Order: sequence, then structure tokens, then C-alpha cells
Amino acid sequence: MSEPFDVVDVIRTKRDRGRLSGEQIDWVVDAYTRGVVADEQMSALTMAIFLNGMSREEIHRWTHAMIDSGERMDFSALPYPTADKHSTGGVGDKITLPLAPLVAVFDVAVPQLSGRGLGHTGGTLDKMEAIPGWRADLSERELMDQLATVRAVICAAGASLAPADKKLYALRDITSTVEAIPLIASSIMSKKIAEGTDSLVLDVKVGSGAFMKDLDQARELARVMVELGSDAGVRTRALLTDMDAPLGRTAGNALEVAESLDVLSGGGPADVVELTCELAREMLAAAGKDDVDVEAALQDGRAMDVWRDMIRAQGGDPDAPLPVAPETSDVRASRDGVITHMDALAVGVAAWRLGAGRARKEDPVQAEAGVEIHAKPGDRVRAGEPIFTMHTATPERFARAEQALADAVEIGETYSARPSIVLDRMR
Amino acid sequence: MSEPFDVVDVIRTKRDRGRLSGEQIDWVVDAYTRGVVADEQMSALTMAIFLNGMSREEIHRWTHAMIDSGERMDFSALPYPTADKHSTGGVGDKITLPLAPLVAVFDVAVPQLSGRGLGHTGGTLDKMEAIPGWRADLSERELMDQLATVRAVICAAGASLAPADKKLYALRDITSTVEAIPLIASSIMSKKIAEGTDSLVLDVKVGSGAFMKDLDQARELARVMVELGSDAGVRTRALLTDMDAPLGRTAGNALEVAESLDVLSGGGPADVVELTCELAREMLAAAGKDDVDVEAALQDGRAMDVWRDMIRAQGGDPDAPLPVAPETSDVRASRDGVITHMDALAVGVAAWRLGAGRARKEDPVQAEAGVEIHAKPGDRVRAGEPIFTMHTATPERFARAEQALADAVEIGETYSARPSIVLDRMR
Repeated sequence: MSEPFDVVDVIRTKRDRGRLSGEQIDWVVDAYTRGVVADEQMSALTMAIFLNGMSREEIHRWTHAMIDSGERMDFSALPYPTADKHSTGGVGDKITLPLAPLVAVFDVAVPQLSGRGLGHTGGTLDKMEAIPGWRADLSERELMDQLATVRAVICAAGASLAPADKKLYALRDITSTVEAIPLIASSIMSKKIAEGTDSLVLDVKVGSGAFMKDLDQARELARVMVELGSDAGVRTRALLTDMDAPLGRTAGNALEVAESLDVLSGGGPADVVELTCELAREMLAAAGKDDVDVEAALQDGRAMDVWRDMIRAQGGDPDAPLPVAPETSDVRASRDGVITHMDALAVGVAAWRLGAGRARKEDPVQAEAGVEIHAKPGDRVRAGEPIFTMHTATPERFARAEQALADAVEIGETYSARPSIVLDRMR
Repeated sequence: MSEPFDVVDVIRTKRDRGRLSGEQIDWVVDAYTRGVVADEQMSALTMAIFLNGMSREEIHRWTHAMIDSGERMDFSALPYPTADKHSTGGVGDKITLPLAPLVAVFDVAVPQLSGRGLGHTGGTLDKMEAIPGWRADLSERELMDQLATVRAVICAAGASLAPADKKLYALRDITSTVEAIPLIASSIMSKKIAEGTDSLVLDVKVGSGAFMKDLDQARELARVMVELGSDAGVRTRALLTDMDAPLGRTAGNALEVAESLDVLSGGGPADVVELTCELAREMLAAAGKDDVDVEAALQDGRAMDVWRDMIRAQGGDPDAPLPVAPETSDVRASRDGVITHMDALAVGVAAWRLGAGRARKEDPVQAEAGVEIHAKPGDRVRAGEPIFTMHTATPERFARAEQALADAVEIGETYSARPSIVLDRMR
């Protein structure tokens, strides 16, 4: 069978800083999905894209080629508008858990199709699976029914949405071609556009624990994604948020569920509450609902009621106790002072080493493993006080996790409080 | 089993313009040979090397890691010094055929371990296999015996020399990562150093039919290779030679053997004779033999005598008629004038399309297919006179070959004769 292009020429074009034609892009994404373009050819092409970039037209076409590799969903028959959120990933980022039920309180349906974690950033599904009985896999029929009744769903994205992205993401992960704006933007937006949400709010993380280490890069990524969404008819907004320090006071699956329950009960760490409410307001505004009091819905239990319905609808028991690690160990302050910096990446790596994350996608995770954070930047500590408690079912992992945590904290004399967790907005 | 490095980190280092450590290079080449590093990871790394380059230390280490992936040969027991030649590849480059016996006339042994062709440049073994009965595969014992008696050998490089390079070259070929100086230099020199020749002359081609399109690039490639050879104790010299127009008057396997026989009989095209003699003098000088009259050895039949011995030693019949294509077709001059330019690449592509070359390494080649060139740059032609004759056993290929040839020739009014085919020398 005859192919219209030779992949060696397509790779050479991008290698030599040329622009790929629309037809080349459509073909190479499709041919890769079909297996005609081999993994080793696609990885050479993605490295060339990583190093030589893509024009806006190329990113647009690449995104739509990935959408066209699979099916598209349609939520237009629902009695509610739909709004979704996507985070580019950070340490301790459990925001989806309180956010989905909170937004649903206001009669907006939230189809939160999520993934599992790889490396030092946790996956939403891994967190939810700490809840006894809860299941991630829903049929499209079950998803639609739950959106029509409970309005909030957190579940696994089906294999039918952007299969080209699924295959490409696994390849990028093992070939050091993850952190490039054209590839990140097309990966995220192909799934979200194919999903068919009416509105989308992007939480673009900036800092040591995120893909984007500086604000300018993050702005560029946000700009590209907002444009891709808007062009496809999705009302898309972005918040750029701080990810230098971990979010909240936990990193690890069951630990993060417990912290989310605190937020849904009207408590929880201030930064988690702030970001949950900011994102909820943005999603609701995008869905046409301004001037709603989201804080009240956390305080008065309405968000928790939706949470409980959502967990039950997916087979979970909202009253069952969460798994608890049999072994814990503290990491203590080396001196008196104020915490001036806490490295999100190091905390993420520690949680991962304790068993909360996976190195290969077929690895299991420990629901109970993770890091509890007792003091955050701005807090005063005394020498010998615990800053972290490490949790695991496999105590032989403590040593390497402690290595990661030992250098994660800087203690000094003065701390200038950071401004809001939201660094910028884009729409 | 535990590996000392993670290939994802190694790729990231080069992707981010860092230098690979010696230990990283040793490991990644070895782990790729063992199959621990996958093809898609190596292709991402080679694309990063292609685009971000390598330091001299990195190239040196990479070359030696490829040498260490296999065995080394040793010619020190031979009664003659050894000298080898390597060409970076061009269209109509049959120089090895007359050169090896010519140098052997002067009691220097020539172990010409060669390859097959891929794409538009022909392979020396493909050309030799046009000779009835001749076989490319010799055991190491047979190779040594022939070097001790006939002194000239053209044969296939065994699988035991630099197997890492063999695997990597096949990968680079399908991933558009061939034409990078660090990768070309390490590929060529790992094989030649492992082969164990005393002296080596490199014929680095420059121009439209070569990997290196301009002289500065070619000088850099030559410089790197001469340094690699010298550091490893091989007396290494380089000639930079013109490859804008095809070499000689034929491109194609049996056609090039016939032209080589003309040269060995004291005739043949001036450029082929000139380059053969230049390279022979350089090889002989490197082997300690100055002031030898190589032209005389072509004129008086001594080189032809060695050729006949060499062919017979490998099962060939030097008197058997060469295969002749059953079908020919001419491409004619469109106007009167002088040929001002002839594009080597286009002629190579035409020969390839006629059946002289292969698209995939498992494809067969036609011994009889190719292009005969009746007029070269500087020659006057009249409209309607044949410039090329195409030869093939499969006449359905004429149309696409003629397409390539149609634009290969420019006819104008004046032609300024090019200087010597040798553009520069390096040692």
C-alpha cells in the first residue's frame, strides 16, 4: 500500500527548521497511530519538534490530527452546561477532588476525565482509588447518566479519545520529550476538545515542581492552549499558579483524599481552599454563572453532599475509613528559624520513593504512602521539631525518601509572604 | 539487573545542550547494543546529538565505545604494511575498484572492507557482485591469506567489527539522523580503527551528490576523522574532493565495473584516473612509499594483473562478460550549447530508480541497471544529441528516472573549467 509521504523526509524538514505542511502533519499522526511510522521515527521527530519548535499553524493542525485519530464525545443533550478543569500537574495537587463537587453544586456538569500518575506528580485516579470500592472505569452511558443526575464525575478517560496522544505520550515519557510547549499543548487540548466540554479552565503550574519553571514559559503555554480551545469553540481560560512549594500539607494518595475531605468540610489548608475557590469561580463564570458564593457551598455542606453522591455512584463508600500507613517516620528541623523555601519537586520525589507513585506505567501504587507537611514557607520552626512525616507500608523506603526531603527545606531569618497563589490569568 | 544510568537522563542532558560524561557514553552505547536502551530512545538521543552537537572529547569517547562493542582485527603478522581508503560516498564513485589493485602493485596490502549501498549512493559490494561468480563474504582466515598473497581484497566487513555502529547506522538511516559530523565521523572511524589498518586515506566528498554540501563542513568532518585516526595510532590523511557532478561516465553496478576495467587498462575518464592516482599516491606515501609512478602501473598492466588475481581469489571470472541491460533509452539535449552543470544527486537518484540501488536494505539490486553519461560539464552538445543512456531490465522504470535526469543538466554558453578534483588535503 502506498503512502503519500516518506517519514524520513518529514523528519528532515523539522530537523532542518522547516515548517511541516498540514498534509504532512495529518499523515504522520495518522500513520503513527496505524503503526506505519515506527516509534523510533516518531521519537526522532518529537525531539526535532522539541528543539526546533512549531508554528501556531503547525500546533493547531497537530492537535486536530490527534483529535481525528479517535472519537469525539457530545454533552449537548445534558440539561446542564459543562465545565472542565485541567492542571498541568504539580506536587500535592488534589484540587480536582473538592473542585468537581463544588462546581456541580451550582448546576454545572463537571466531566473530569483524568489519568494516572507517572514520576513525581500524582495522578487523580490514583488518589481516588484510595477510597474503598470506588472505580475509575465508567462506560460512556454511565458517564452520561451520572452527569445528568449527580453532575460531577471523576473517571478514567476512555481509550477512544485521541488514541494518537495516548501512544505519543507514552513514547515522549521514555525519550525525554515531555516538556515542550507544542507537545504539551497539543496533548492536553486534543483530549479536552475531543471530550466536548463547553468550557475549560486550565491551571498552568509554574515553579520547581512543574514542567514550566518560569512565568514567561508558562504564559506562552497558557496562551497557546487558550487559543487552541477558543478556536475549537470551547470557552477556555487559564490561571497561572504557583508551584514552587507543594500545594497544601499532603502529597500521597489517601493523605490527599483526607485533606480534600477537610476542604469539603469547610476546613483544610488555606492555599488549597484559595485555589479551589478561584478555579470554581472561573469555571462557573465560563459556564455563564457569575456572582456565586462558592465559599458558602464548602461551609454549609452542599459540596460535601455532591461528593458523597459522586463516590456512591461509582461504587465507593464515602464513610469507609481510608487506608493508613503502618509505618511513619519524621524528618525534623535542623535549626531554629523561619522556613524560607520548600522545594516542591523534592517533596514529590520523596512521596514517589515512599510508594505513592510509579516508575513504569504498569507498576502498582501504595494508597497509604506519602508525605505529610507540618510546616510550610513562612512558618517558624524550632530545631528538632518535625517538618515532615513520611508514610509507607515498606519502611525500607524511608532512607531514600529522607534523602530527597533533607535538602527540600531552607530555614532562615526572614520570609516575605508570597502574594496570591494565582500569578496571572488569561482568557 | 541494575543499570548505572537512566537513559531518559542521558537524553535530557544532550537535549539541554549539556556534555555527556565518558561513563554515560560508554554505558549508552553498550546498553543500546545489549537492547536495554530501545531504538526509540537511541533515535531521540541521535536527533539531539544531530541538533546540539558533540565536543571533541564526546566524539572520541563515542567512537571508542563503538569500537569496544566488537572485536579488533590485527594485520601486524602480514609481510606488508596495510593501507585502506574510505570514501564518504558519492555518485559514480567506483574508485575502490581500480585503486585497491593499483596500490597493491607496490607491495602494500589493501584490506578494503566495504558495504552495500542504500539510497542514491551505490555500494562497492553491489558493484563487485556484478562480476559473475565473485563473492563478498570471506572468513577472517581467507581475508588474511588473500592479503598475504594477492595483497588486495575487497570484501564485506564482518559482523564482529563495531556491531554498535551497524545497529546505529540502520537506525539513523530511517530517522533522518545521517548527515551529522559527530555521527558520521564516529561511524566511519570506529570501523576503520577496529579493522586495524596501519594507514588510512579518507576521500571526503563535497557537493550536491555528497552528505557535505559545502567545503567548510567537509573540512570539519575531515579534521575530526583525521584526529580520531591519529589518536588511535592510524596514519590518517584526507582528501576533500569534488562531488557536484558525478564521477566518471557511469552510475550503476556493471556499468561502473566496466569503467573501472577501462581505467585498469590504461584508459577511462580523466577524473576517475586523476582521483585514483591521487588517492593511490596518498595511500602509498602514508605507508612509507614515496616517489612511485602509479600512472605507469595502470598503463603497463601491473594493476590489471592484481585485479585479475583478486577477482579469481574470490571465486570470480575476470574474463566473463558483464551483465548487459536488455533495455536502454536516451535522454537528449534540449538545445545547443555547453554543459555548465550536471547535478550528481539527480543522476544518482535516476540510477537508483532504474534498479541500481535499493530503498530498503533487504531489497535486491539489478547488476545491469544504471546511467551512462555521454557529455559532462564543459562538453559542447547539440539539441537532440544523447546526454544520458538509461539502462534497466525493467523498462517501466524509465519514466521516473527520466524525470530525475531532465533537470539534472544545465546548458549555457560559457563554462569555466573547474580546477583539480582535489579541493583540499589534510593530514
